[in-house]
Formats: sequence, C-alpha cells, structure tokens
Amino acid sequence: MRAPDELRALIEGYLRSLDLSGELGDLRDSMRYSLEGGGKRVRPVLCLATAEAIGCEPERALPAAAALELVHSFSLVHDDLPALDDDAERRGRPSTHIQWGEGVAILAGDALLAEAVRLVLSYPSPAVARELVAATQGMIGGQYLDISGSGELEELHRLKTGRLFVAAIGLALEVAELPAPEQAPWRAFAEELGTLFQLVDDLLDRDGYVLVYGVEGTRRLADEAAARAQARLAEIEADTSVLESIVVSLASRTS
Amino acid sequence: MRAPDELRALIEGYLRSLDLSGELGDLRDSMRYSLEGGGKRVRPVLCLATAEAIGCEPERALPAAAALELVHSFSLVHDDLPALDDDAERRGRPSTHIQWGEGVAILAGDALLAEAVRLVLSYPSPAVARELVAATQGMIGGQYLDISGSGELEELHRLKTGRLFVAAIGLALEVAELPAPEQAPWRAFAEELGTLFQLVDDLLDRDGYVLVYGVEGTRRLADEAAARAQARLAEIEADTSVLESIVVSLASRTS
Repeated sequence: MRAPDELRALIEGYLRSLDLSGELGDLRDSMRYSLEGGGKRVRPVLCLATAEAIGCEPERALPAAAALELVHSFSLVHDDLPALDDDAERRGRPSTHIQWGEGVAILAGDALLAEAVRLVLSYPSPAVARELVAATQGMIGGQYLDISGSGELEELHRLKTGRLFVAAIGLALEVAELPAPEQAPWRAFAEELGTLFQLVDDLLDRDGYVLVYGVEGTRRLADEAAARAQARLAEIEADTSVLESIVVSLASRTS
Repeated sequence: MRAPDELRALIEGYLRSLDLSGELGDLRDSMRYSLEGGGKRVRPVLCLATAEAIGCEPERALPAAAALELVHSFSLVHDDLPALDDDAERRGRPSTHIQWGEGVAILAGDALLAEAVRLVLSYPSPAVARELVAATQGMIGGQYLDISGSGELEELHRLKTGRLFVAAIGLALEVAELPAPEQAPWRAFAEELGTLFQLVDDLLDRDGYVLVYGVEGTRRLADEAAARAQARLAEIEADTSVLESIVVSLASRTS
C-alpha cells in the first residue's frame, strides 16, 4: 500500500503532464495556473487510496482523481470571482481573475469542467462520468445556497464540500467496478469524511460551524465525525490502513 | 419524415418538461429562464433531422439534441456577462445576469453545462458524451480567441460557431451508432452548414465577414457555402430532403 505522500506525488506528476485539449489554445495557460496553485490534493489522494484499498491499481484511477481536482479548481476559479466570493488571493498567489482577467477566468473555469468530463469519459463505462457530473451538480447547488443565503448550514456543506468528498470515494468504486450493493459502507465512510473536513475547515477559519457551536463544540463534533469515519472503515473487509491514516491527518490538520 | 417545425415542437416540449437535478434547488429558475428565451433551436432541430435521415427515431436523439441546446444556452449566459460581451439584452429580454444577478448567472451557466453532460450520459455508449464535450471545448477555445483578439477570423468561427454545428450532426451519428467510416460525408456537410450559418449571421449583423469581404462578397460566400452543403447532402445515400430544406432556410433567413 502506498503512503498518502506517494499518492500525492503520483497525482502531481499526472496533473503536470496533463494534455489539455489543443483547441483551447492559450487559455490553457490560465487553466494550468489555477491547477498548479498547490493545495493538498486531498480529494485525488483519497480517490487513489480508495482504489488501492479495493485492490485496483492507483494508476488506473488517475484520470478520475485528476478530473476531481479539475472540478475542484473550476469551482475555486469561479467562486473567487468578484460576483461571487470576491477573493483576490488563493493560497498566497493572485486569484485566476486577478492574474488573467475576469473574462479569461470565467472561460478557464468552464474549460476546466469540460476537461474534467473528458478525463472521466476515457473509461469504458459511463458510470464514472455519471458519478462526477452528479457530484458537480450537487456542489454547484451548494454554491448557490451559499450566495443566496438560503438553506441550512448542514445542507449547504453536504452539497458544497461533501459532494466532492463522496465523489472522491465514489469515483474509485466506479473505476474499480465494485458492484452497487458493496458500495454502501464506502459511501457512508465518505459522508463522514466530508463532514470532518468541513468541521476542521471551520475550526481553522473560525467561521461556519464555529459560529453556531463554538470552538469546543465544533472540535467535539469533528472528533465524533472522525470516530464515525474510522468505525465505517472498520466495517469494510479490505486493507484500509492508508485511509485510516488520512482520517487521522484530516482530523488533526492545522492548515 | 417530419418537417423542421414538427421537430422544433418536439424539442420545445422536451426542454419544457426537462427534469433538472433537484440538488440545484432554486438555481433551476434562472436556468429555465435562460433556456426558455426562445431562439430558433437550429442546432437541436438539425440533430433530430439528421437522426431521422439516418433512420433513427428523432425521439431517441432528444436527450442529445437538448444537451446541445443547454451547451448553447450556457455559452450565451456566460458570454453576456459584463467581463465578456457585456450584453444586457438577449432576444428582447434582460440577459440572465441582469434578471438574476451576476453570481447566479455564472452558476446557472456552470449548471447548464453539467446538466447537458448528464443528458448525453443517459446513452449506453460514452461516444455521445465525448462528441458533446469535444465540441464544447472547441467552442470555449473560440470564445477565448474572440475576447483575446488573437487568431484568424475563420479559425475563430470554426471553433465558436462551427463546433456546435458539427456536433448537431455528430451527436445524431453517435446516437444512431453509425460506424466511423460512414460518418465523413455527414461531418463534411456539417462544416459547410456551420460556415453558412456564421456568414448569414454576419450579413444580418453587418460585422465579422462583412467587415472583411463586404456585403456582396459575404453574400456570395454564403451562397457558395449553401451550394457546397447541398452537394455534400447529394453524396449521401439517405432521404436528406428535410436537411436540404434546412439549408435553404438557413441561407435565406432574415433574423
């Protein structure tokens, strides 16, 4: 079993050498800029680790894992726009629209989504692409709840953050062609992981759940989500040791 | 063979009853607004007429034809944004971002693209979705050429307008599962049709080709493109009478 750092190196290499559609021309520069902004690659690493736990070569899951990161990037590029969150910085660098202009950033986001779909369409079964697109729709629905100020906090996070986390696991299940009845415990694990990620995010940013439950209350909720995630993994008959270590690092992360 | 008006009624009905993903919530109102702005539905009608000419029930091609219209809508919603073409009106109504706000319009465009992909993923073969996504990437590349002011006029139009026209035909070929070697004359026809459409567009708007070749020169180019499109159809062993009538109406349209 490969450690998370090895899987991260694998996805970084794949993303760096990604052959974006030639018809996009120089728009590819802004797409690469937004893709290469670093980040922890949590979602693709989870996808690759899940694939390996099921007994599928992580390399086979690379297009799906990369597609997920492209969707994540697309959502950040559009989210940072002045009409949405209006963030001029992303991970210590100018946001895509600051660096390349707003029009280019809108098109770069669009093209990242299209490229993500192209990647998942490289699999023989359309089930992989269906998983990605359903998660993308949920995430967009979450962004809409966020800007419109409607909906419950839990529902907003389940969609905006949770859907791509569940897809990180779900894509691996579909790439490995795991039969639907065997997928349930994996997906339950993914739900807990998405909740955990968001709770820790809010603890680090002092917003969201922290404004409702306070720091200690949110920390307790995070620890409970981590425990439930581990309990889900324990129910699965597979070597989930790498996934267990990812739960621990997500629960204790400081950035 | 059904007449273009019958096919238009078919696609209008399908679009009106389209079941958009529930997780998009109220964002669906802005998506429907942009979809129901009228328009001639040229691309989906072409897709349905091509399907019928090949001997495939137009009803079978409806999800693909609708997906194409969703991609077209998505491109208009994003194109109209202030950072791109900055158009406050579309077909006599306020543009989506004027009616619903810029942030909602960005998300509505994203969601229209995702829904389009979901529709083509309803087919058993991923080839239909691949056709749509490749065309979408080309179209985005064309929009980028347009705002960056780089590239030749012909290349810009081949991508920005032509790719969705070729896809209107290409999607029907993939839905009908026409073997690749038999697709060439259909695709050659589609290229001519895209050129014809753009030339007449520029004649009506007095821009693009008209600025380079003048009104008479552009009219002549349009007539030549129409003649080549008809010649391509004549080479195909199928009842292409409805497609022939569409060429005539595209060449002589006044709006």
